[in-house]
Amino acid sequence: MGSQKIKPIRGFRDRFPDDKILQEYIFATARSVLRRRGFEEYDGPLLEPIGLYEGKTSNELLTEQAFSLIDKKGRKLLLRPEMTPTLARMVASQADQLVFPVRMFNIGLRYRYEAPQRGRNRELYQIDFDILGSDSVLADAEFLSTAVDLYKKFGGDENNLVVYINSRSVLSKALEKVGISSEKIPEVISIIDKRDKLAQQDFIDLLDAKSVDSGAILHFLDNPKNYKDNFSDLLEAIGALEIDSYIKVKPFFVRGLDYYTGLVFEVWAKKGLNRAIGGGGRYDNLVERYGSRKIPGIGMAMSDTAIIEFIKENRIKIPDLTPSLSTLLVTVFSRELASKSFEAIRFLRKNNIPCELYAGIEKLPKQFKYANKKGLDYVLIIGPDEAMEGKVTLKTMTTGEQEVLTLENVLSKLSTRIIDK
Amino acid sequence: MGSQKIKPIRGFRDRFPDDKILQEYIFATARSVLRRRGFEEYDGPLLEPIGLYEGKTSNELLTEQAFSLIDKKGRKLLLRPEMTPTLARMVASQADQLVFPVRMFNIGLRYRYEAPQRGRNRELYQIDFDILGSDSVLADAEFLSTAVDLYKKFGGDENNLVVYINSRSVLSKALEKVGISSEKIPEVISIIDKRDKLAQQDFIDLLDAKSVDSGAILHFLDNPKNYKDNFSDLLEAIGALEIDSYIKVKPFFVRGLDYYTGLVFEVWAKKGLNRAIGGGGRYDNLVERYGSRKIPGIGMAMSDTAIIEFIKENRIKIPDLTPSLSTLLVTVFSRELASKSFEAIRFLRKNNIPCELYAGIEKLPKQFKYANKKGLDYVLIIGPDEAMEGKVTLKTMTTGEQEVLTLENVLSKLSTRIIDK
Repeated sequence: MGSQKIKPIRGFRDRFPDDKILQEYIFATARSVLRRRGFEEYDGPLLEPIGLYEGKTSNELLTEQAFSLIDKKGRKLLLRPEMTPTLARMVASQADQLVFPVRMFNIGLRYRYEAPQRGRNRELYQIDFDILGSDSVLADAEFLSTAVDLYKKFGGDENNLVVYINSRSVLSKALEKVGISSEKIPEVISIIDKRDKLAQQDFIDLLDAKSVDSGAILHFLDNPKNYKDNFSDLLEAIGALEIDSYIKVKPFFVRGLDYYTGLVFEVWAKKGLNRAIGGGGRYDNLVERYGSRKIPGIGMAMSDTAIIEFIKENRIKIPDLTPSLSTLLVTVFSRELASKSFEAIRFLRKNNIPCELYAGIEKLPKQFKYANKKGLDYVLIIGPDEAMEGKVTLKTMTTGEQEVLTLENVLSKLSTRIIDK
Repeated sequence: MGSQKIKPIRGFRDRFPDDKILQEYIFATARSVLRRRGFEEYDGPLLEPIGLYEGKTSNELLTEQAFSLIDKKGRKLLLRPEMTPTLARMVASQADQLVFPVRMFNIGLRYRYEAPQRGRNRELYQIDFDILGSDSVLADAEFLSTAVDLYKKFGGDENNLVVYINSRSVLSKALEKVGISSEKIPEVISIIDKRDKLAQQDFIDLLDAKSVDSGAILHFLDNPKNYKDNFSDLLEAIGALEIDSYIKVKPFFVRGLDYYTGLVFEVWAKKGLNRAIGGGGRYDNLVERYGSRKIPGIGMAMSDTAIIEFIKENRIKIPDLTPSLSTLLVTVFSRELASKSFEAIRFLRKNNIPCELYAGIEKLPKQFKYANKKGLDYVLIIGPDEAMEGKVTLKTMTTGEQEVLTLENVLSKLSTRIIDK
């Protein structure tokens, strides 16, 4: 075979260590916050039968955005576009064993067959978390408080974040009161859901085209008056949990997923991004569609890329991240003296100094260059003189300082670098 | 839509929290060991063009075991069966930027279209790690020392583990010396590779069928005499690194992957399992096939399930693992008194006590049952009496002991439970 450049398929990408470590930081942080609040990690297949989604998730997601594939036996399978149907199946299958309300989370891959020109990835990661088995306002409040806490860990605060809440059923009732006939309400709601993305006149035209009183709707949306009162129980709980400064009732969004039954919410970044960086809602009738009794649920998803954009846009300070944890390079002076380097690295590792052996025979400057590029703080040299004396030379990369030491001396000098877990 | 039981597709499975936390422990441990030794995590697409593998990986893997799918445009894609080709592509694409030798690792999904009757999963996780850019014996020794260190972290020792090493090129030369003609050597090697799985007579019959002197080969395999000398440089380095007690030269295995060029190795569990629980080798000509200059490499893969089986078979003690980290349930006495529970949980969380709010209005015994089943150590109760006094009742689940305390008292009592990272 000759040599060939082979690229990833469209919408997929390779992820080098500098990218991966940032993602891993996001995941480790989310995992820690969620586990401390009693959420438990689960996972499911990446490839699912299409029946898992048909009639359950949104039709748009299924027909336009799903990444569908045909297997060797001609069956249509989906690379999972979202996690909720998999979770609902799992909870339905264990409905008699689980102790409700269960708290579950997943961190994993999702797939969308996005139009390539939008520059969107077709392979993406999401963090999903859910509470199932309670339709109480307490579940809603505990859930939203978890969401806010999670975003706070990524630098979110009242100035840069807002959580919009709404409910399809509340909105339907309000529109009925404004005089919209009930058969027109689904269409009107789907137009209202797009309000933020439409010019005012286009919005009016769309409503007029459905012979709907656009004036009445505009008036309602701009003066939602007592609309907030529909959420008074939740707002009270949210106030008691001291997250009310993040939450805002917004009548004109409902989110597209067909399985939402009540509360829906979206987390928006106020600055720069001007878009939702996470969202979810209540799905009280989904689990039973997988063959169990009725088990209500509430959940949300957030992508790592949205969180990373949020961190960058708001210049949030995060810890220094390095893909490698090694701090010292044991160089190899020559083939003959390699055994001295083996001896040194064995000693340092036994004492939990994170370090690496230069994996070849090269001139020292090349080995120093490696240490430098990799950001290692120290280099250890054992040449003929050091070998004769039973010592080593420790070079500090930042200062260039060199000291001739015993290995025991090196160890005490590097005692703060020990990682023993 | 009616209610339907929908199962995962064949060879795929749902993973509940008790499974997932064990897997996560394996991954976190491996990540920590590898990063301390200078390895950096990368990732790549799960779905790859078939051209990434054709003529590079083993033909058996590609034609019989690959999980191939057809996309919407009729293209044949593979759910990645292994990670090395993806890594080789990545390294080739950045050959001018990377500082060699690079140390890379990946933890992720792989797919095999295994015959279902074998009860094997078609979706599996593997930990892969590699050193690229050096063909030195120092790279081999550093690599094997990393592998041994990793298995040691999972309870491996000289008594329960052995690492077999061999080399296709060394074996070829040895067979030539025994008098096997060079054109027969590839066939003979593939028979020798199966020796452990064959009855003695079947092994002899297979060799005889190829008109090969089976007596000479048996004699060679049973008395490999100086065969070990071919690995003397490596064995010397391994001795200096003090991992020689794990390593054994074994002339009759070569591993199937077509890209291996030199050293190959397999980690075997000595007890019970009697099979390889990890393996790899040197692939010095693979990266250049993706369009770069020659960049030699050495790598291995191990699956989480093999490590878990090893841990169970050898009764290795691992830390207590609980999917959730929460330690205390704040119960809700009634809708009216919910605000007191909100207040309590707000206080405890502000002080980094990992805890959860019962997400509904239920009778207390049901809430206690939840705490009990979830393994929570404490339950907090705020009924009318406690509310009046400005106190809470803390119940210790193991003893049943109940104390009426202020929230401050609860905090000092639970000070060892604080998680503030």
